[in-house]
Amino acid sequence: MSDGKKIIQIQKNIYDDNDRLAAEIKTELASKRISLINILGTPGCGKTTFLIGISKYLKDKKILVIEGDLESDIDTVKLNSLGIDSFQINTHGGCHLDAVMIEKALNSINDKDYDIIFIENVGNLICTNEYDLGETKRVLLTTVTEGSDKPYKYPYIFEKADAVVINKIDLLPYVQFDEDFFKKGIRHVNPTSPIFKLSSLRDEGTEPFVDWLKKGL
Amino acid sequence: MSDGKKIIQIQKNIYDDNDRLAAEIKTELASKRISLINILGTPGCGKTTFLIGISKYLKDKKILVIEGDLESDIDTVKLNSLGIDSFQINTHGGCHLDAVMIEKALNSINDKDYDIIFIENVGNLICTNEYDLGETKRVLLTTVTEGSDKPYKYPYIFEKADAVVINKIDLLPYVQFDEDFFKKGIRHVNPTSPIFKLSSLRDEGTEPFVDWLKKGL
Repeated sequence: MSDGKKIIQIQKNIYDDNDRLAAEIKTELASKRISLINILGTPGCGKTTFLIGISKYLKDKKILVIEGDLESDIDTVKLNSLGIDSFQINTHGGCHLDAVMIEKALNSINDKDYDIIFIENVGNLICTNEYDLGETKRVLLTTVTEGSDKPYKYPYIFEKADAVVINKIDLLPYVQFDEDFFKKGIRHVNPTSPIFKLSSLRDEGTEPFVDWLKKGL
Repeated sequence: MSDGKKIIQIQKNIYDDNDRLAAEIKTELASKRISLINILGTPGCGKTTFLIGISKYLKDKKILVIEGDLESDIDTVKLNSLGIDSFQINTHGGCHLDAVMIEKALNSINDKDYDIIFIENVGNLICTNEYDLGETKRVLLTTVTEGSDKPYKYPYIFEKADAVVINKIDLLPYVQFDEDFFKKGIRHVNPTSPIFKLSSLRDEGTEPFVDWLKKGL
């Protein structure tokens, strides 16, 4: 077999193994009535600030954040300092989280304590999309500063999102963002998932997203 | 051999093959006195606007842009409409460009016509960093909206950059960006590469970058 064919076969094995383990995680957490929410987005789209923002509306729930980063524990330190339980995964160069990493993290904590476990995935609009982590819902966080053409250039991640969040709307007066064009691009690949607009920094528009989240728990 | 060991070996073969071809591209373009500039950055960091911005200061050079995107030809259409020669590569889900794609693109155009060929890589701070494209220089484009912790979370791409550009400085009054912390993070992994601050949209700070670029041709 050529290297090309070999890598396609091995990649398929990796995806299959990942999906099997993800299905086990999903079943296990469902039996404990725990929701797992996978948050995806570009580097710097505000995933941690978003989690801090929605946590204020989830005081009646026990939540944990699993943080995925190549290096550093900046976000875990920040979340813990705010009283939000957080667990750090460092991929040391890896471009995505996978189900094995999530299983190991869950084995390291007493997950029965939690109602919702959020995963802040590595900042990446491509590779993260290929790995099911056993999540209940997948949320794609975008921003008005990234421009309105992203659904056309990165359609696959918009296609699989259970919800799309447009963050940083406080910056709308200062950037070129064509909301109609952006939404048209999403609807081309994803006709039904809800689209939310908010500013986590200013706590604007947070509640409609939290309502949707709570309905899906 | 286990799947894990197999994929490490095949990945090594892929990197080795890529590096060999990249070295050939580098030699070939050098013999024609053509510079190849690899532009990396997150989705939405303003790579195309940056290229349009610097092109105004390169009227004495014949330039071409090779555009890398998963899907769409939005940027190529835009550049061509502005009189900037542009060639589209669609990876159809691939998370980076590689030397094979660049060689194919160069074979499709009459590269002897150009002084500088820019590559606008796929928006990704991780996988793009692993593939030498035969470039003369590698430029990392970041923005003030992405936050100041990026060098700590994505150190590998900062380490390999020949220049780091902080774009969108027109948004500085409206975002939280700690420039000292950001630069300290870069210097931790990359002690010498120059750091430029500019706003391509407002054409502020473009000339120092162009001066650096021209010196390296």
